[in-house]
Amino acid sequence: MARPVTLFTGQWADLPIEVLCKKAVEFGFDGLELACWGDHFEVDKALSDDSYCAKKRDLLERHDLKLYAISAHLVGQAVCDRIDARHKAILPDYIYGDGDSDAVNQRAIEEMKNTARAAQKIGVEVVNGFTGSRIWPVVYDFPPIPQEMYDEGYKNFADSWNPILDVFQECGIKFALEVHPGEIAFDIYSAEKALQVLDNREEFGFNFDPSHLIWQGIDPVEFIRYFPERIYHAHMKDASVTLNGRTGILSSHLRFGDPRRGWDFRSVGRGGVRFEEIIRALNSINYQGPLSIEWEDSGMDRDHGAREACQFVKNVDFAPSSVAFDAAFEKP
Amino acid sequence: MARPVTLFTGQWADLPIEVLCKKAVEFGFDGLELACWGDHFEVDKALSDDSYCAKKRDLLERHDLKLYAISAHLVGQAVCDRIDARHKAILPDYIYGDGDSDAVNQRAIEEMKNTARAAQKIGVEVVNGFTGSRIWPVVYDFPPIPQEMYDEGYKNFADSWNPILDVFQECGIKFALEVHPGEIAFDIYSAEKALQVLDNREEFGFNFDPSHLIWQGIDPVEFIRYFPERIYHAHMKDASVTLNGRTGILSSHLRFGDPRRGWDFRSVGRGGVRFEEIIRALNSINYQGPLSIEWEDSGMDRDHGAREACQFVKNVDFAPSSVAFDAAFEKP
Amino acid sequence: MARPVTLFTGQWADLPIEVLCKKAVEFGFDGLELACWGDHFEVDKALSDDSYCAKKRDLLERHDLKLYAISAHLVGQAVCDRIDARHKAILPDYIYGDGDSDAVNQRAIEEMKNTARAAQKIGVEVVNGFTGSRIWPVVYDFPPIPQEMYDEGYKNFADSWNPILDVFQECGIKFALEVHPGEIAFDIYSAEKALQVLDNREEFGFNFDPSHLIWQGIDPVEFIRYFPERIYHAHMKDASVTLNGRTGILSSHLRFGDPRRGWDFRSVGRGGVRFEEIIRALNSINYQGPLSIEWEDSGMDRDHGAREACQFVKNVDFAPSSVAFDAAFEKP
Amino acid sequence: MARPVTLFTGQWADLPIEVLCKKAVEFGFDGLELACWGDHFEVDKALSDDSYCAKKRDLLERHDLKLYAISAHLVGQAVCDRIDARHKAILPDYIYGDGDSDAVNQRAIEEMKNTARAAQKIGVEVVNGFTGSRIWPVVYDFPPIPQEMYDEGYKNFADSWNPILDVFQECGIKFALEVHPGEIAFDIYSAEKALQVLDNREEFGFNFDPSHLIWQGIDPVEFIRYFPERIYHAHMKDASVTLNGRTGILSSHLRFGDPRRGWDFRSVGRGGVRFEEIIRALNSINYQGPLSIEWEDSGMDRDHGAREACQFVKNVDFAPSSVAFDAAFEKP
Amino acid sequence: MARPVTLFTGQWADLPIEVLCKKAVEFGFDGLELACWGDHFEVDKALSDDSYCAKKRDLLERHDLKLYAISAHLVGQAVCDRIDARHKAILPDYIYGDGDSDAVNQRAIEEMKNTARAAQKIGVEVVNGFTGSRIWPVVYDFPPIPQEMYDEGYKNFADSWNPILDVFQECGIKFALEVHPGEIAFDIYSAEKALQVLDNREEFGFNFDPSHLIWQGIDPVEFIRYFPERIYHAHMKDASVTLNGRTGILSSHLRFGDPRRGWDFRSVGRGGVRFEEIIRALNSINYQGPLSIEWEDSGMDRDHGAREACQFVKNVDFAPSSVAFDAAFEKP
Amino acid sequence: MARPVTLFTGQWADLPIEVLCKKAVEFGFDGLELACWGDHFEVDKALSDDSYCAKKRDLLERHDLKLYAISAHLVGQAVCDRIDARHKAILPDYIYGDGDSDAVNQRAIEEMKNTARAAQKIGVEVVNGFTGSRIWPVVYDFPPIPQEMYDEGYKNFADSWNPILDVFQECGIKFALEVHPGEIAFDIYSAEKALQVLDNREEFGFNFDPSHLIWQGIDPVEFIRYFPERIYHAHMKDASVTLNGRTGILSSHLRFGDPRRGWDFRSVGRGGVRFEEIIRALNSINYQGPLSIEWEDSGMDRDHGAREACQFVKNVDFAPSSVAFDAAFEKP
Repeated sequence: MARPVTLFTGQWADLPIEVLCKKAVEFGFDGLELACWGDHFEVDKALSDDSYCAKKRDLLERHDLKLYAISAHLVGQAVCDRIDARHKAILPDYIYGDGDSDAVNQRAIEEMKNTARAAQKIGVEVVNGFTGSRIWPVVYDFPPIPQEMYDEGYKNFADSWNPILDVFQECGIKFALEVHPGEIAFDIYSAEKALQVLDNREEFGFNFDPSHLIWQGIDPVEFIRYFPERIYHAHMKDASVTLNGRTGILSSHLRFGDPRRGWDFRSVGRGGVRFEEIIRALNSINYQGPLSIEWEDSGMDRDHGAREACQFVKNVDFAPSSVAFDAAFEKP
Repeated sequence: MARPVTLFTGQWADLPIEVLCKKAVEFGFDGLELACWGDHFEVDKALSDDSYCAKKRDLLERHDLKLYAISAHLVGQAVCDRIDARHKAILPDYIYGDGDSDAVNQRAIEEMKNTARAAQKIGVEVVNGFTGSRIWPVVYDFPPIPQEMYDEGYKNFADSWNPILDVFQECGIKFALEVHPGEIAFDIYSAEKALQVLDNREEFGFNFDPSHLIWQGIDPVEFIRYFPERIYHAHMKDASVTLNGRTGILSSHLRFGDPRRGWDFRSVGRGGVRFEEIIRALNSINYQGPLSIEWEDSGMDRDHGAREACQFVKNVDFAPSSVAFDAAFEKP
Repeated sequence: MARPVTLFTGQWADLPIEVLCKKAVEFGFDGLELACWGDHFEVDKALSDDSYCAKKRDLLERHDLKLYAISAHLVGQAVCDRIDARHKAILPDYIYGDGDSDAVNQRAIEEMKNTARAAQKIGVEVVNGFTGSRIWPVVYDFPPIPQEMYDEGYKNFADSWNPILDVFQECGIKFALEVHPGEIAFDIYSAEKALQVLDNREEFGFNFDPSHLIWQGIDPVEFIRYFPERIYHAHMKDASVTLNGRTGILSSHLRFGDPRRGWDFRSVGRGGVRFEEIIRALNSINYQGPLSIEWEDSGMDRDHGAREACQFVKNVDFAPSSVAFDAAFEKP
Repeated sequence: MARPVTLFTGQWADLPIEVLCKKAVEFGFDGLELACWGDHFEVDKALSDDSYCAKKRDLLERHDLKLYAISAHLVGQAVCDRIDARHKAILPDYIYGDGDSDAVNQRAIEEMKNTARAAQKIGVEVVNGFTGSRIWPVVYDFPPIPQEMYDEGYKNFADSWNPILDVFQECGIKFALEVHPGEIAFDIYSAEKALQVLDNREEFGFNFDPSHLIWQGIDPVEFIRYFPERIYHAHMKDASVTLNGRTGILSSHLRFGDPRRGWDFRSVGRGGVRFEEIIRALNSINYQGPLSIEWEDSGMDRDHGAREACQFVKNVDFAPSSVAFDAAFEKP
Repeated sequence: MARPVTLFTGQWADLPIEVLCKKAVEFGFDGLELACWGDHFEVDKALSDDSYCAKKRDLLERHDLKLYAISAHLVGQAVCDRIDARHKAILPDYIYGDGDSDAVNQRAIEEMKNTARAAQKIGVEVVNGFTGSRIWPVVYDFPPIPQEMYDEGYKNFADSWNPILDVFQECGIKFALEVHPGEIAFDIYSAEKALQVLDNREEFGFNFDPSHLIWQGIDPVEFIRYFPERIYHAHMKDASVTLNGRTGILSSHLRFGDPRRGWDFRSVGRGGVRFEEIIRALNSINYQGPLSIEWEDSGMDRDHGAREACQFVKNVDFAPSSVAFDAAFEKP
Repeated sequence: MARPVTLFTGQWADLPIEVLCKKAVEFGFDGLELACWGDHFEVDKALSDDSYCAKKRDLLERHDLKLYAISAHLVGQAVCDRIDARHKAILPDYIYGDGDSDAVNQRAIEEMKNTARAAQKIGVEVVNGFTGSRIWPVVYDFPPIPQEMYDEGYKNFADSWNPILDVFQECGIKFALEVHPGEIAFDIYSAEKALQVLDNREEFGFNFDPSHLIWQGIDPVEFIRYFPERIYHAHMKDASVTLNGRTGILSSHLRFGDPRRGWDFRSVGRGGVRFEEIIRALNSINYQGPLSIEWEDSGMDRDHGAREACQFVKNVDFAPSSVAFDAAFEKP
C-alpha cells in the first residue's frame, strides 16, 4: 500500500482554495496540506465560526481530497524572531500590529496556541511550521560569540514554545518543525539540541524536508535515522547544488532563480535528492503519514511541475517487503 | 625569487609584540602583518605619539622582520554592523563607548580614517580588514527579503566606506577587505557587487584568503582570476570540509574545534586548500606582495603549527618561468 | 529485435508453479527460468516420470511463457562445499540424507549429472547454478594460507565437476556458473582460474549476474569483455552499495535488509548497476540468450517489484545498429 | 509552451526525404532540420528551379512537419580545410571537381553563398554547418607551432567566411557553426577567438551541440552562458565518456562503435549529457528555437533510437516559471 | 608533546630481538611492541624464568627503547577458530599439540591467561591480539545462515574469552583486539556486538588499525568516534585500494603483493589512510598511548620502509591546541 | 637499490653541455640523457670525428654523471610526418634542406640509422625518440576517414622504420618511442597497433612517459602492465588536468602556460601523476633502467624545478621487498 501524496498549498496561496482543489485533483493528488494563510485555512475563523471547519472538510471531500496536516510556517516564524520589515509582509495584520518585536512575538505565541485548537477542530493530528530563532543571525561565529549567547537563544526558544506545546498536548496535536535555515533547528545537531532544551517532549517533532538539508551537505537519510521517533510529517521537495567554482553555497545575496547562486530549489525529481533512499528510510522507521509535495522551482511553470512531481512521487514510493528472501530458498 | 612569508599577529594578540617577534624569527618568518589590537599596532598611539611608529619599525628591524601591511579587522567590523554584545569584547573602549549602534558605527568610521593615516606614518601601503554588513544576518532569504533591503545594505556600505576611502586615497593607502562571512562581501558575486557600489574606486580591493572560500564551494583560484587587479594582499590560511552525512556546512551553532562541525580551519598544508594552484594563480596575475600566514587550528598546538606552516609555504612558493620551453627545441 | 525477458523462479519457490505462471504473465514476462526446487522443476521426477517434462512444457505454453534455462543453485552448492547445518535447509532429503559431508558431496554430483539429463529432456540448453567451494571459507588470507591449500581447492573443484561436465557434454548442455561469493569463482581472476583448471572445457561457462560484482568493486562490463565466449546466460539483478563511513562492505554478520549493511540487493533499476552499459556489452559479444530477472529486494513488495523490473528491463534493452553512420554522410 | 522537437536528417540521407517524413511523423517529431545533401535539400536545384522550394514546403506541410533550419555541414567543411581524399566522399561532384585544394575551397565559398540564398528562398532564418579549418591538424602543439601559424589559420577563416557572411547579411540569414573538432572553433576559447576575428559580426553564431563538448571536459551549460547572444540553433545529441584506464580520449584511430574508444556518441538520454541543466540554461538565455535531435549511436538500431530520443526530449523540455515564489508567501 | 612511535615486531620475527633492537634504534623508533612469538617475547619463559622479563627490559633499556604493549595475535586466533592446517604453522608446539580443535582452543585459552600474567610481570598494561571466530567462515550469507548460527558464534566468543578476561582483570591488564577480518569483530557493527555479548566489560577494547578498515569502505575516524572509550592501543598501518574495474575487493584468492588484488597493504604514508584525520581523532578522544607501526608492504624493502614510516608518523603526529582562538581577538 | 635519476637535456639545449653538466651535478642528478640537438650530442660529428664520443664520455665522467640513453626526438619526428614550416625550426639544415617533404623524410631515415651507429659508438643501448605520423592530423574522424587511410598511415610507418630498425638491430640498439600525440602511437591501442605492423620486432619499444597519458584519461600504470616487455626507458614528467567547465582537453589552440588550457605540463611532483604507483609498476615488470626527468613547467623557474624534481624522484623511488610477509608470522 503506497502512501497518499498531498500538495502543500503554501506556494499557491494566491489562488482561492476552490480553484486549487480543482487543480490538485487534475494533477493527480490524493490530498492537500493546507497553509494557514491566504483563504486556505484561517485560524481565527476556524475558532470563531463553528461552521468553518465543516465547510472546509466538505469542500475537500467533494473533490475527494484528504487532509492530514495544516501548516503554520509564517506565524511560527514570528514566535522567536526579532521582528523587522520582512515579517510585515508575511503576517496577518492582527498579529503584526504596530510591529513592536516583543509584542509581535507574544501575539504569535497566542496564535500558535489557537492553531493547535483549530487543528483539533478540523481533525488533523499534525501542525507543520517554523519556530523562528534569536540566534540564526549569528550563524557564522564572528564576531566571536560567547557560548551564553547560544544558550540564551535556545532558552528563548524553550521559553516561548513550551506554553504553546502545552496547548498542543491538551489538544492531542503534534507540532512538526520543518528543519530549515532561519529556524532554531536547521541541521542534525541543532535539531538534537532543540529537542534537548525541550526535554524531548513528545509534542515536538519534525516535518522532514530533504531540500533544506542537501545543500548543507547533510544526507537526508541520516536525518531520518537520527530521529526515527520524531518524523511527524514529510515534505517531498528537491534542490540542486550548482557549485561551479565561482558560485558559493551562501549564494551571494542573490534571489532564488538566479543562475549565479550555489544552490536552488528544483521541481521534485529534477534536483539532487535521492528519493529512492528516502522512501527506504521512511519505510525502515515505519513512517505512515502522507508524502506532501512542497513544489518550488523558479525555473519551471508551476502547473507543469506539480503534475509531473505528483507522478514522480507515486512512482518512487513503494511498499516494504513482507517476504524473507532467504526463506524462499528453503524447502517448502 | 620567492615571496616573503609573514605572520599575521591577530591570533597571537595575547602575547606582547616583543615576545612574538622572537618566536616569528625562530619559526622562520620573514616579516609580520601587525594586528591593530593588543599592543601590536595601536592606531591612537601611532597618531598621538610621534615616536611610536619609529619604535615599532626599530623593533622589527632588530629582529630582521619586514612589515608590509597592518590589519584592522575588529574596528572595520564595527563600521557597518548593527552593534551588539559581541562587539564589546573586540573593540577598544574608546570605540565601543556606551554601545549605541549608530554612535559606534560613527566612531569606527573615524578610527578607520585614522588607521589609514597611521599606515602612512609607519610606511605600509595596505591596510587589511573587515567591513561589517547590515545584510549579513539575512543571508538566507526567509522571511522573504525585498530586493530593496539588499540594496539598502549595499548603500549603507558605500555611504559608510566612501568617506573612509577618501582618506585612504589622500594617504596613498589601499584597503584590502578580507572576503569573509559576516562582511559585505563573502563570496565572488557579493564581492563584485561591493566593487560596483563603490564605482570600482581603486582604494578598495581584497585581502585574498582561501580558507573562507573553500567551505562555501568556491574555488580560490577563480577568485584570483575574477579580480586580477584587486588582490592587494594574500593570506595563507587553510580549512577542511568535514561533511560526513551528519555534519552540515552551517555547523549547527557549534564552536570551532567541535568535530560535529561541517568544516573547520586547519594549520596551513593540513586542510583542503590547494596552495600549489594558488601560487600559480598569484604568479599569473603578477602578485608581488607577501604571503601572510593567518594561523588558526583548534586542534593543534600554535607554536608547532606556525613553524611547520612557515616551512610549508616556503616550499610551495616558487618563481615563475623565464624560459619559453618550445624555444628549447629549436636550433641554437 | 529485443531479447526475451524471463523471471528466475528461485525467489518464488514458496508459490506453486501454476500460481507463479499467472503472476509472471500479468507482470509482463516472456518466459521463466525454472528453479530446480519447490515444485518448479524436480529433477528426480523429470527422470522417473516420462510425462513430467511434457506437462511442464504444456503448462508454460498455455501461459505463453518461454523456457530457456533451468537452475540448480542449491544442489550445485553441495558439490564442493564442506556440508554443515545450513545445507540441510536447502537440500532435498534424498541429497542431504544423514548429512555426512563426503556422502552429500557425492550425491550432489550424481544429482547434477541427472540435472543435465533432465535439461536435455525438457529441451533447454543451459543449466545455471552454483559449484560450492572448499576454499571460500579462507577467502581472507589469515592465518596465512599455503599456496597448496588454494591449489587443492581448485583441484577438488575440477575433480568433482569434470565427471558432471562429462554428462553435460554427452547431453549437449552447458553449465553456467553464477559467479558469486561462496563459489569457486566469485570475481574475474577466480573465474579465470576456474576455467584454467578445467582446461577451458566448453561445457563450463558463466551465468553473468552484475549484482554480485558491483559491491566487490568489479565493473560488470569488464566481466563480459573478459569472457566474451563464456557468457551462457544473463541475470538482471541489481544491488546498491551503501557505504557511509560506518557500514562495511563485509556487512557485519547482518541480514539482508538491515540498513547497517555496506551493500544490499535492490529491485532492478533501483540500485547501482548501469544496465545501459551491460546491454551494450552483451550486444558487442553478440549474446543471444534471455535477460532473466532475479528479483530480490528486502525493502520492497515482491509483486510490485517484479512488475516494474520487467518493464525496466524491456525499456533498457535494445537492438544493435545495422547502419554505419559515417556512410550516411556520403553521397548516395 | 514547450519547444518544437525536430529531427536533423543528416544521418538519414540514405533515405529519400519522402520516406523519412513518414518515419519522422511516426516517431513523434514536430519538424525536420533538412541536410543539404542526399535529396533532402539541394541548393543548386533550389536556386535553378523556382518550384523546388515550394514543393519541399508542400511535402513537409502534408506531413504536418515544421522547418526551422537547413544544414550545410559538408560543403562548409570544404571552405577552410586543405582538401584531400576524405572530402571527395562527402562533396557533390560540382564542388569537388578535380580536387585541387584552392579551387575546391573557392567553389565551396560560392556554394555557401548560394546556400544563404536558398535558405531565404525556402524561408528559414538559420543555416547550420561547419567551417573547416587550416589549423585543426596542428591541434597538438608539436612540432612547436609559431603563434603566426595560428594567426594565419584564423585569418584564413575570416578571409574565407567574410564574403560568405556578407551574402548571409543581404539575405537576412544567420550562419550557426556547430562547434566541433575539425572546425575553426571546437571549444569555448577557440569559439571566442573565431568571433573576435570576425569582429563579432551578427551573421555568425553557433549551433549548440553538447555531444562535442562533454568528452573534451567542457560543461555545455558554460558554453551557453559564455555566448548567450550567439546560440542560433540547438542540437540535442548525446555522448558518453568511456575512459577506463586503458582507453584514451583521443581514441586510438579507432572507428565510432569500437569499445576500445575513450568516448562515443550515444542515443539521446543514454549518454552523459545532463539535458535538464541544458534546458534551464536555454531558458535563462531565452532561446526560442527548436530542439533538433541529431541522432547517432553506433550501438543502437536507428529507428528504435530516434523514437525514444524524441520522447525523451519532449519529457525533459519545460516552460519557465511565471510566478515569483516568495510572493506566494505574502498576504493576498 | 608528540606520542612515542613504536615498532610492532611481528613482521620481523625472523630476526633475533637483539638484532631488531639495533635496527629499530637506527630507524628512529622510540620503542617496541613485542610480538609473543619468535624470541621476542616468550610467555612460557616469562612465567617459568623469574629473570626473563628483567633481561628483556634490560635489553630494551640499553637501546633506549620503551615498551608499552605486547602482542599475542597468533595464540589469540586459536581461541575461537576451528583449528586446521593453517594454525599448525603459526602456533607453538605446546599449544598446537595433536591439532584436535577443541583441545587446541582450550590450550589457547590457558595460554592467553598466562599472557596476561606475563604482561603484568614485564610491566605493560595492554596485550594486543586476535580472538579467532567460529562464524568468520560464513561471513557471506549463503547458504542462508539461521540467526542462531550467528548467535552461537558470538556466544562461543563470550564463553571462551570471559574466563581469559577474568585473569586480565585480576592482573590489571587490558586486552586490545585488533579488529580484523577473521576475528569475531572485523568492522564497526561486529565490534559493537562483541562488546555487547561481553556486557561491555572494561578489560576488552580495541587495538585500532586503520589498514583493515579502509578497504572495507569504513572510515577509520568513525571507528575512533564510535568507541572513544575503548581505543586501548593504536597501530599505524597503511593500505591501498587498487580497484580498477577488473580487480575485486575480495582479491580472488591471490597472495598479498599480486597486482591483480583489489587492495593491499602499503608502507605507512604510501597508501590511502588519511593519518592527519586519525591523529586529530585520537587527540579528540585523548588517546595517550603509543603510535605503533605495523609495517607490511609486499612491494618495498623492509628496512627502507620502516625508516621512512617512522619519520612519516613523527611528522604527522602533533599536540592538540591549548589556546582558544576566539580569545585571541579579544581585548587583553 | 634505488635507480639512477638522470636529466633529459632537451629542455636545456640553449645551454652548452658543459654548463649543464655543472648544473645537473649541483641539482643532484646521477646522469644525463643527452638530446641529439644543440651541442649535447651531434650525430654527424660522432660518426665523422673519432674522438667526439670519447670527449663526451670524458666530460660526463669528470662530473661523475652516467649516460644510459641518447634522444633523437626531432629528427625522428621528420621520418613519417608530412613536412611543413614547423619542422624547419627543429631540424638541422642538412636534414631540412629545401624542405621537400619526401626528401626530408628520406634524409631523416638516414640520420636515424646514423643515430643508431652513433649510439653504439658512445656505448648506450637505447635511443629515445619520436616517429612522426601520416595520420595524426586526422586523429578526429571527420570528414569520415576510410579505414584504408588509417591502414596506409601504419604502413608508411612500418615501411619507413623497418630499414632504420634493421640498423638498430645490427648495432644492438633499441629504439624507444616516446608515446605522445603527433606520433604513430599516442595511447595504448595505437601503441599496440604500431607493434603489430612491425611484427613485434624487438628493436622497437617505448620510452614510458606518464605526462602524455594522464590528460588523455589513460592510467600510466595500465600502460606499463600492457607492455611489460617493451618499456625500454622511462621519463619522469608530470602534467595537470585543469578542466573547470570552460577549459577543454584539446586546449583551444593556446600555448603551454596559458591558464585557459585544459591541461598543462607540471614540474615533477606538482601535477596529477601518481609516481608511487608508477614505481610499483616498474618494479613489478623489473624495469632496471634510469628514471629520467624531462622537466617542463611553463609556470616555474627551470633551475628551481629541476632541483626539487630530482629530490622528489629520489624520495619516491624504492627497492622491492625481498621478504614474504606471511612467513614472518610462522614459527622460526
